Amino acid sequence: MNACDIIFKTKRKQPLSANEMKWLINGYVSGEVPDYQVSAWLMAVCLNGLSEEETKNLTLIMRDSGEKIDLSGIDGITVDKHSTGGIGDKTSLIIAPVCAACGIKVPKMSGRGLGFTGGTIDKLESIQGFNVDLERENYIDTVNRVGTAIIAQSGNLVPADKKLYALRDVTSTVDSIPLICASIMSKKLAIGSDCILLDVKTGSGAFMKNINDAERLASLMVETGRNAGKKCRAVITDMNQPLGKAVGNALEVIEAVEVLKGREKGRLYELCMVLAANMLELAGKGSLQECRAFAENAVECGDALRIFKKMISAQGGDAGFINNYSLLPEAKHKIEIKAKESGYIAEIDSEGIGFVSLLTGAGRTGKDDAIDYSAGLIINFGLGDYAEKDSVLMTLYSNDKNKLEEAARRAENIFRLTDRPTDQPPLIYSDI
Amino acid sequence: MNACDIIFKTKRKQPLSANEMKWLINGYVSGEVPDYQVSAWLMAVCLNGLSEEETKNLTLIMRDSGEKIDLSGIDGITVDKHSTGGIGDKTSLIIAPVCAACGIKVPKMSGRGLGFTGGTIDKLESIQGFNVDLERENYIDTVNRVGTAIIAQSGNLVPADKKLYALRDVTSTVDSIPLICASIMSKKLAIGSDCILLDVKTGSGAFMKNINDAERLASLMVETGRNAGKKCRAVITDMNQPLGKAVGNALEVIEAVEVLKGREKGRLYELCMVLAANMLELAGKGSLQECRAFAENAVECGDALRIFKKMISAQGGDAGFINNYSLLPEAKHKIEIKAKESGYIAEIDSEGIGFVSLLTGAGRTGKDDAIDYSAGLIINFGLGDYAEKDSVLMTLYSNDKNKLEEAARRAENIFRLTDRPTDQPPLIYSDI
Repeated sequence: MNACDIIFKTKRKQPLSANEMKWLINGYVSGEVPDYQVSAWLMAVCLNGLSEEETKNLTLIMRDSGEKIDLSGIDGITVDKHSTGGIGDKTSLIIAPVCAACGIKVPKMSGRGLGFTGGTIDKLESIQGFNVDLERENYIDTVNRVGTAIIAQSGNLVPADKKLYALRDVTSTVDSIPLICASIMSKKLAIGSDCILLDVKTGSGAFMKNINDAERLASLMVETGRNAGKKCRAVITDMNQPLGKAVGNALEVIEAVEVLKGREKGRLYELCMVLAANMLELAGKGSLQECRAFAENAVECGDALRIFKKMISAQGGDAGFINNYSLLPEAKHKIEIKAKESGYIAEIDSEGIGFVSLLTGAGRTGKDDAIDYSAGLIINFGLGDYAEKDSVLMTLYSNDKNKLEEAARRAENIFRLTDRPTDQPPLIYSDI
Repeated sequence: MNACDIIFKTKRKQPLSANEMKWLINGYVSGEVPDYQVSAWLMAVCLNGLSEEETKNLTLIMRDSGEKIDLSGIDGITVDKHSTGGIGDKTSLIIAPVCAACGIKVPKMSGRGLGFTGGTIDKLESIQGFNVDLERENYIDTVNRVGTAIIAQSGNLVPADKKLYALRDVTSTVDSIPLICASIMSKKLAIGSDCILLDVKTGSGAFMKNINDAERLASLMVETGRNAGKKCRAVITDMNQPLGKAVGNALEVIEAVEVLKGREKGRLYELCMVLAANMLELAGKGSLQECRAFAENAVECGDALRIFKKMISAQGGDAGFINNYSLLPEAKHKIEIKAKESGYIAEIDSEGIGFVSLLTGAGRTGKDDAIDYSAGLIINFGLGDYAEKDSVLMTLYSNDKNKLEEAARRAENIFRLTDRPTDQPPLIYSDI
């Protein structure tokens, strides 16, 4: 086999055999196939696509390129969840304990964030003492005792994805549905839960700007997961505005705790209930309606919060913050962004919010950048809400006064207000 | 500027500005833009194309990436010719002296061949003593005295093309009409003749398999040349069978001399007359019909042969072979390939002929491979001809008996014969 023939086939929309795909990907990981050939192939994939069969093969070859997590030591059905990314998405912190409270096991491996805000792992690290690097045995044991544990991805999980993603990032070949599918699903399959729920975001703040693309990605991921022997489902959800009020790390932890305490019942709570119900139903806990009731009850009766607390303690964290938020990192400075006129919120620039969050210090641009766990913002209005002139649209937080002022300047045009009432977009579009 | 944004634009079919194109190409030549970004861009070009404006800009930026040849010391109008490549194409050896005999100047710079047969330079090097590396002053002087000289391309001519072509070759990004145009025209423009005639081949043995693609390439090259201030024209010619009877190096030199002696009047002669007439007309020597008569007369009266002889001598070659072909390299071994049945020639596998030629030793696969100047083949039948059973379809020549036997095995299925009479394809399809 040679790389030129393989590139040529994809360029001419001729399908690659599983062996050809394996030769190319394994050759790239081992260094035998040079990056300039792989980047040409990636561009051909971006422009010509891959068939479902090819996407499945690519995913499995990537899955098998490194370590696989053995979850066989966990008693009961394991369920994983993946979101395709959005601003203010802290659902993992909420639904992991909710689902565990309903009797399924949620062994989660998450990544650190690169970009606008931290990832789930960064958010948890804003908690004093919390350890995201449990030894494998301790991890399995914690999931068995508590019902859930959330740890950082191991270094050798799907090295093919690490190498391919780094190349895609510098060759404008990120936005390909089959490549996104293979990147996500190879990791989810290597992590090895029995069931996988996919939360595919769509809207101005999401990678998939329109519902058609989101549905195509969702179908492809679900098919790929099912082909690999997993129970799989996807929910298409809205990302035309940030999810919830908080964007940041400690700020998002607080908001998640508020939801677990049953005090926050907005769109974030609603989405968490939908996702948890789907995860429970996938795991065979009952009908979707029954599972929804289980999830709501887990919050109402306080079980979900108790499991969250137990998980924090089991992973070495100081759970005292749950009743005293001042134990979490607090920013020295804040700036309020006020409405210049009265009006209905017609548009929220979610990517703009992401940039503001990054400027406050809540995200990182390079993988070794430090995060300011206290930084970020609280948004007080959603799409369709009415804001009086001079009401506080959002409050920005940071330990760095200069950064905060820059963030505030960037924050000026995030909200677009109109005279006429505007609609809330739906929260859930469809499921697959 | 950054390479990612530039790649993204071409991927999304957004035009690149001249400055963006310059930044990318010059950055690649200087080593600032890495090959893996350029190969992704090249694949985007292959699949999405470039506009005429972008192709023109790319061509000029490539032209300006290295040395340019100053032909201002030549008296009179200079005319160049380029063929897009085919099997058995020795037209340059014939039309350069024919045109010179009609009073125009033909300063030719040619390449060595890589692939099936040698290039024009390799063919000339089969002549004892012939020097393809004239000093610049000697080159200009020879063209002024003789009317033509044929030398090898200098090392620093269009380095952007050298680097891009090497990358295209290993990333399946060769077959793109704008990239082919820029590659050919950047060199022709750097060489600097006043007029450029392009012989664009089409058919099973050519790079452009169909007439539409050939016409698109031809139009783009003509437009690009005219935009750069040159008189430019293209002729679309047939390559469904090898051109003439000889394929090889010394064997092709002999065939060219036979045409110049007026003894060969087949398709090769006819094509040479068409090309020469077009070159003369481009140079303002008269109407196409008048120019055709000038070209024919140059052969009839022996002027073209005399100029060919003069050029050989001026470049240090022993012109004695013109009247005694045994002074050229002669192969020790030959094998005849005979018709197994009688029939009309319905198909000749031109690429197969190319492989056979390579196997005899007439071509090279690596740029430092040695060529057997005596090797190659003589084909006795063309499309539409009738061959009796056991008649000799072709004779293969080589100094290496083993190679020759391998070539003979490969040669078995080159000709397809049928019972019913078949047509000759036309020689000329159109001009642009």
